Amino acid sequence: MTADRNRCWRVARHSHPGEPFSAELFDWCEEAISEPADGEFLVRTICLAPGPAQRGYLDKGKERLLERVAVGDVMRGRGVGQIVASRHPEYSEGDIFLGSLGWQDYSVQRPRGKEFVFSTKKITRPILPLSTQLGVLGQAGVTAYFGLLEVGALKQGDRVLVTAGAGGVGSVAGQLAGINGADITAGTASTDEKCAWMCDELGYDAAINYRTESVDERLAELFPHGIDLIFDSVGGEILDTALTHLAFHARVVICGFIATDYTIDPLSGPINYRHLLYKRARMEGFVSFDYWDRYAEAEQALAGWYRDGRLFNSEDVDQGLEKMPDAVASLFTGGNRGVKICRVAPDPDRLPSE
Amino acid sequence: MTADRNRCWRVARHSHPGEPFSAELFDWCEEAISEPADGEFLVRTICLAPGPAQRGYLDKGKERLLERVAVGDVMRGRGVGQIVASRHPEYSEGDIFLGSLGWQDYSVQRPRGKEFVFSTKKITRPILPLSTQLGVLGQAGVTAYFGLLEVGALKQGDRVLVTAGAGGVGSVAGQLAGINGADITAGTASTDEKCAWMCDELGYDAAINYRTESVDERLAELFPHGIDLIFDSVGGEILDTALTHLAFHARVVICGFIATDYTIDPLSGPINYRHLLYKRARMEGFVSFDYWDRYAEAEQALAGWYRDGRLFNSEDVDQGLEKMPDAVASLFTGGNRGVKICRVAPDPDRLPSE
Repeated sequence: MTADRNRCWRVARHSHPGEPFSAELFDWCEEAISEPADGEFLVRTICLAPGPAQRGYLDKGKERLLERVAVGDVMRGRGVGQIVASRHPEYSEGDIFLGSLGWQDYSVQRPRGKEFVFSTKKITRPILPLSTQLGVLGQAGVTAYFGLLEVGALKQGDRVLVTAGAGGVGSVAGQLAGINGADITAGTASTDEKCAWMCDELGYDAAINYRTESVDERLAELFPHGIDLIFDSVGGEILDTALTHLAFHARVVICGFIATDYTIDPLSGPINYRHLLYKRARMEGFVSFDYWDRYAEAEQALAGWYRDGRLFNSEDVDQGLEKMPDAVASLFTGGNRGVKICRVAPDPDRLPSE
Repeated sequence: MTADRNRCWRVARHSHPGEPFSAELFDWCEEAISEPADGEFLVRTICLAPGPAQRGYLDKGKERLLERVAVGDVMRGRGVGQIVASRHPEYSEGDIFLGSLGWQDYSVQRPRGKEFVFSTKKITRPILPLSTQLGVLGQAGVTAYFGLLEVGALKQGDRVLVTAGAGGVGSVAGQLAGINGADITAGTASTDEKCAWMCDELGYDAAINYRTESVDERLAELFPHGIDLIFDSVGGEILDTALTHLAFHARVVICGFIATDYTIDPLSGPINYRHLLYKRARMEGFVSFDYWDRYAEAEQALAGWYRDGRLFNSEDVDQGLEKMPDAVASLFTGGNRGVKICRVAPDPDRLPSE
């Protein structure tokens, strides 16, 4: 072990409706490191994955995918780490481990099955940097993969729009569209700098700055024959505008709704959902965990594209466990460019051999 | 021929946004009957099908499935009639003919292919009353059939909600759900009398009067495990409420949006579309004409259920061509109970033998 204390973020209180996510919801603690019991092992956190869903872990709204985290508990969060002590026969010191490590340096873990989100995994052939296991080769990549290829049924020649095209999942979805034969891939983002990055690094054919450009006009110009597939993580006005540009038999994949997810103003739904009828189109929501049984397929494909140099590691790394609350908050203000990662410790010098 | 004049409704003007449909938009005319040229035939209208889409034929909005009807033209409308004179070798006097007859007693017709909506057909084995060819065995039935079984992918044991459950298409969709193995079928309607009719004649397990009952509470009570399939022709608040009761992997079939179709107030979309993600559900629009190539399949199935006495002829007949404008208007105020039909002439005594 490299430190004798466990730094962690514990939940100080739940958030009020509409309250921005911030460090005020947490207490920073430094505590003794727990000891693994029989069948358990101790994991040192290397990277954590800040995600928009984490805001939901603290809010008082009634709709969420996961239970709230109780006040006083260490904040929930997926991460990748290395086993530093083990009392489980199949897990050894040095193994790379993926699981719900929480916002802390050290956690006692045990293997878990495919229960929703709490699933764990030993990574037998880790690719460096390990952050990719949480990003383009991990949750973000797998979500983009199933959303685009399975729910969206992307086919050769499709004209694709990715909203939040420079976001965590979007930055991978845009790349996967191009890799898998989309005729044109366009994305929306909040700054010119992100738009340039999308075209220069991620292979987008076009990017729309929704803060300074008319999304409606740009879509009309980029998609004169309509959009075949919308990969949407945003909702709100951008989705509503995009729905008026659907091609016949279009697919609209609902991956999230970060634009309105925590608004307390009276919400408006996608008024233009009626274009689903005009264009005989479908809108479908999904959650990547539902594809748990097929994660290996996605991970293998993603790793292949990454090794070939076709999939760019579109990650956006914050350094230090103390950054976690701000890292999550930044997701709601367009502060990230790619998959947000929080690096808690350096990658190990020595990786386990299989 | 049984009369020497052709009575017809000609378009007097187009409607203003939000203007209710009414006879004021038309001129009632009595004119000479046209003569068929070579390759044409003259059809006497027996029944017409008033439909909500007809309002769109006159309005100035930009979104519609069909072109507007020009001012001065006879109003467009599908109907069933009998050929009274023919100069086409394959069509004989006495044949029963389905096509775009228009709001008039007599029309000159010729066969047309599968062009959208203007398709025509000779009915070789007509079932009486001929109104069924426009209703439960015709467009309404076929729409319910493909919407429910194909787009909605109804399967044995599904829990089904039909909005506008006593409406033209809804009154058939509700019946087809039961016939095809739905575990529970519930519908919404605007009066207690319609609700009773749905349960007594159409085989609904339950009906909700959305004007006097809490749709939310009734759905919670009727669908404790969620709704697997929503067949929606309404949109608006009812759809939005129903979306919060989806079961996992639910299908929401968008057949129309009569609640808001002609509203000029700022529209609200289905705010609760986010439940599509929570429940991994899909919402899909369709237009029955897209299934043109498979109409025979649907018609055969519908006719079979009708002959077996399992499909009730849920039609709502107005008598007389002069009733057409009011018949269409009634569709927007919940004035119909079942498939609205306008009978222009009695069924013929003698049907053609094949």
